[in-house]
Amino acid sequence: MTAPDLPDVPALPDAPALPDLQRRLVEFAAARQWGPYHTPKNLAAALSVEAAELLEIFQWMTPEEADRVMADPETAHRVNDEVADVLAYLLQFSARLGVDPLAALSAKIDRNELRFPVGRPPGRTARATPAAADPASRADQVAAPASESTDRHST
Amino acid sequence: MTAPDLPDVPALPDAPALPDLQRRLVEFAAARQWGPYHTPKNLAAALSVEAAELLEIFQWMTPEEADRVMADPETAHRVNDEVADVLAYLLQFSARLGVDPLAALSAKIDRNELRFPVGRPPGRTARATPAAADPASRADQVAAPASESTDRHST
Ligand SMILES: Cc1cn([C@H]2C[C@H](O)[C@@H](COP(=O)(O)O)O2)c(=O)nc1N
Ligand SMILES: Cc1cn([C@H]2C[C@H](O)[C@@H](COP(=O)(O)O)O2)c(=O)nc1N
Repeated sequence: MTAPDLPDVPALPDAPALPDLQRRLVEFAAARQWGPYHTPKNLAAALSVEAAELLEIFQWMTPEEADRVMADPETAHRVNDEVADVLAYLLQFSARLGVDPLAALSAKIDRNELRFPVGRPPGRTARATPAAADPASRADQVAAPASESTDRHST
Repeated sequence: MTAPDLPDVPALPDAPALPDLQRRLVEFAAARQWGPYHTPKNLAAALSVEAAELLEIFQWMTPEEADRVMADPETAHRVNDEVADVLAYLLQFSARLGVDPLAALSAKIDRNELRFPVGRPPGRTARATPAAADPASRADQVAAPASESTDRHST
């Protein structure tokens, strides 16, 4: 399956491309001889920690407060910082295992377009039972994770 | 501070650039009218869940087993899938709040090069006390998180 035709998005003049940043991160760790620390397992743990630090910013906010979070310069800086940390560990993890994150995401979006038909709320996949497609039914929402987990391995 | 001179990394023929994937994700969610679900707080939570699912793959592995994880096609597929899911939510979160993840990471790598001088193990930042720079001392490793947390807000 190919990506739909998309208009060109010109990169911001100062924003380097993902592969360049990934290379800088790998060279940064290599220069510090951090290879023995940067096992796939440790990098996956570091990624999880940084994702939790990003979530921590929003932990006690109302949805409305969360939407206004960039209005405060200090909080905006923290958000930028944690986004960078998550991406830093995702790219180092990917480099270590030879995963191409852009190709993986492209393939996953193709699959998501089949898994989530237009017109359903999030959490309902294409594999849900007919009953699950009925918005009036609540029981299927409990059943959804099981079909979802089957889906995860087969898509 | 500018990025060091890096050789050109030719993109794989089929790997789209990050901004194109981000646009596809935003259009994917918009087509499903998922805006009300995709609050910054929910997307940060979803990101944290996917990062934990990536870590879950490695949870009971030895470091050696974790390093061989891509040799098994089914596990390799799971790893690719979870990397894609993490990136999917990071890009949707960033789009929602107007964060440029590539610019944020580029700036963070610049700061990391100052925070982590060459020749120290991970976990020792440039702000550590002189005692903390002595590899024979263990007490500073306990003290490190405090200086680190100061550093996090000031860099
Ligand atoms: C300690 C350490 C840091 N960083 C980089 C990635 C993140 O951008 C930032 C995280 O630092 P901290 O642990 O201070 O949040 O530094 C890294 O790549 N590898 C490491 N072993
Ligand atoms: C439910 C849902 C899914 N996805 C996409 C992002 C991930 O690539 C994948 C996650 O699906 P699952 O919850 O089945 O792991 O689907 C998304 O963007 N927004 C959502 N509200």
